[in-house]
Amino acid sequence: MANQRFEKPTGTQDILPGTVEKWQFIEQKARELCRRYNYHEIRTPIFEQTELFERGVGETTDIVEKEMYTFKDKGDRSMTLRPEGTAGVVRAYVQNKLYGEPDVTKLYYIGPMFRYERPQAGRYRQFHQFGIEVFGSSDPAIDAEVIALGYSFYKELGLQGVKAEINSVGTPAVRAAYREQLLAFLTPMKESLCADCQSRMDRNPLRVLDCKKDQDKFGGAPSILDSLDEECSVHFENVKSYLDAMGIEYEINPRLVRGLDYYTHTAFEFKAQGIGAIDTVGGGGRFNGLVGEIGGPDQPGIGFGIGLERIQLILEHQQVDLSGMQPLDVYLVALGEAAEREIVKIIYDLRSRGISAERDYLGRKMKAQMKSADRLQARYTAILGDDELARGEIAVKSMETGEQRTVKLEELYREFM
Amino acid sequence: MANQRFEKPTGTQDILPGTVEKWQFIEQKARELCRRYNYHEIRTPIFEQTELFERGVGETTDIVEKEMYTFKDKGDRSMTLRPEGTAGVVRAYVQNKLYGEPDVTKLYYIGPMFRYERPQAGRYRQFHQFGIEVFGSSDPAIDAEVIALGYSFYKELGLQGVKAEINSVGTPAVRAAYREQLLAFLTPMKESLCADCQSRMDRNPLRVLDCKKDQDKFGGAPSILDSLDEECSVHFENVKSYLDAMGIEYEINPRLVRGLDYYTHTAFEFKAQGIGAIDTVGGGGRFNGLVGEIGGPDQPGIGFGIGLERIQLILEHQQVDLSGMQPLDVYLVALGEAAEREIVKIIYDLRSRGISAERDYLGRKMKAQMKSADRLQARYTAILGDDELARGEIAVKSMETGEQRTVKLEELYREFM
Repeated sequence: MANQRFEKPTGTQDILPGTVEKWQFIEQKARELCRRYNYHEIRTPIFEQTELFERGVGETTDIVEKEMYTFKDKGDRSMTLRPEGTAGVVRAYVQNKLYGEPDVTKLYYIGPMFRYERPQAGRYRQFHQFGIEVFGSSDPAIDAEVIALGYSFYKELGLQGVKAEINSVGTPAVRAAYREQLLAFLTPMKESLCADCQSRMDRNPLRVLDCKKDQDKFGGAPSILDSLDEECSVHFENVKSYLDAMGIEYEINPRLVRGLDYYTHTAFEFKAQGIGAIDTVGGGGRFNGLVGEIGGPDQPGIGFGIGLERIQLILEHQQVDLSGMQPLDVYLVALGEAAEREIVKIIYDLRSRGISAERDYLGRKMKAQMKSADRLQARYTAILGDDELARGEIAVKSMETGEQRTVKLEELYREFM
Repeated sequence: MANQRFEKPTGTQDILPGTVEKWQFIEQKARELCRRYNYHEIRTPIFEQTELFERGVGETTDIVEKEMYTFKDKGDRSMTLRPEGTAGVVRAYVQNKLYGEPDVTKLYYIGPMFRYERPQAGRYRQFHQFGIEVFGSSDPAIDAEVIALGYSFYKELGLQGVKAEINSVGTPAVRAAYREQLLAFLTPMKESLCADCQSRMDRNPLRVLDCKKDQDKFGGAPSILDSLDEECSVHFENVKSYLDAMGIEYEINPRLVRGLDYYTHTAFEFKAQGIGAIDTVGGGGRFNGLVGEIGGPDQPGIGFGIGLERIQLILEHQQVDLSGMQPLDVYLVALGEAAEREIVKIIYDLRSRGISAERDYLGRKMKAQMKSADRLQARYTAILGDDELARGEIAVKSMETGEQRTVKLEELYREFM
């Protein structure tokens, strides 16, 4: 068989050294913020029963209708690569009975998700999300905390022009009443709307207002905020006053309903100065009915999901420089056969003491090795010749100051501590 | 529709708070070791073209024959969830032309892999591996470095009784000659061997010696080490002398051929004191033909893969206690309505300064809140009543010493730095 070149699947990416450090930095920031906010990591499987997403994401959503990676496993069960993070976390919360714990359950996740979409800049078929979910509290202070954590994440990464857009999508009863008002508004213009909108009108008219194509027709649409009952209004007022107290920049957007079916009360999106326009960089909302929908007790929930590819695209566009390569502590050069052998032991010893160290494995001349040391941003080089070795010594040079000195081999590690 | 309980797919796991900290600790150790050894992270897609694994893992392996999660995507292309880490990394090395860089390419990965196997203790259908791969050097010092990194990983995690088993499986020419000798030995006993062995005799007789069932019949089998040519012998001798120099515990096992088809020269496994017996906890080898097989230039490679579930099972059995929950810096208690509102701002400010802080979101009484603080191992509690708030102060108590003092609200954060 002739050799063959293989390529990564369309819409997926290889994250290579030189770029992966940005990912590590972003994930580290997410973990660090979750530590401060007392959120704990949960890891759920990469695939779940297909029905979980049909139920948990909503059968009328684009995700479930068009975008899922669904397959039969060898036991003939229909499985789906997770297209988003919430359904799996809710399933795990219910199955593992986390609702039985005395405190509010505050979880975060970071990992790959999968949607079969047309690839474009910042949009991949395997993409990555950082998300949080809180279960067990209806306190509006939790809504504000969730928004604050997301907001701080963007701010601390250095993203410019970040603000939150918030809305209340009410309770199911509020939405039913608003649905009637909205249908009364939309029905006369039905013929003029796009095919997606017409289809959504029958199934979930609130999501019609989400349509990018027909936005300009919805100027006179009734606002859901005018339909809120006392409980919903008070909740929403409290969320706003908490956001004010924290100094978080936000705007109210009564059109914001999000793509998923399960939100109640607070829905929100994060916006940032993107490429030419204001881009959505993440979002979420309260989902007080979802835990029950998945078969659990009637526990409230709220969370967000943030796409990490989108953030990196915008950070790059805004020329925000994320932490890059870590410098190497020491590059070791051996001159002569005895030194070549000894260096194997020396480098093992240094690394065992927590020092980052590298050497040549290509039999290159000293000059080429020094270039490697430069590329690795080595803080020091250490050169071992057979003469030095015979005296039990090694020459150490600071690459910053140029200062050079000879030290005892057994004390070499002290130079880098 | 009646509500329904969903379960995670058979053979997968939910990693929950309380357990996830062990995973974080192990991954952190892997990353830290890779930093010291100058290995850089690579992330390849969760699924690849099915053919990549047929070519890169080997069509006659159990993995490819029986265990892959293979599906057609919506574009009718056959994709497979990666069953191991090496094939994808080699594909990325070739496709991204990393061989064009001046230095040896030293990569690591950590992530989920998928094999449809019968679940048992420590074996899952979605499992997780830490692996490293080096490309571009045939220096036996690299073989020793790869083994040293794996060995140090186990040692620094606290695993007991760790040693390496090593072998040389030679070059393709050496293996062809040895294959004939081995067939001459095996053919007379063919009828007495298990079905798998008989099938393997025709396709890859070296792997017959891998068989768990028929081990006792192979006492008189020829050793591949007696078939090594000069180049292979020198390489192997050097690897051993480097391992000796570093003080790494190892044994030579001439039966060790590993489950994958592509190894050349050094093959190795790590063993540890397991549950009742010595268990294999990881392994790898040199694969000097694989890059070419995948369509790349003729570049040597070597690496290992370490299953993280297995390690945790054995660490638990050995009663090694990995790092647990991080304590919380402060738990905030508000007494009174004005304090309840103010605390939203205070906690946001503390968290923005890098302090981990929590409060109540369930409207619980003070006693229940103090129990929460205990469960979170809070270092301090801070109690804000309306009286203190009026004076711009807050009461702070050390949970360790019981010492209590009152501080100005704007200086609260200083208590926890």
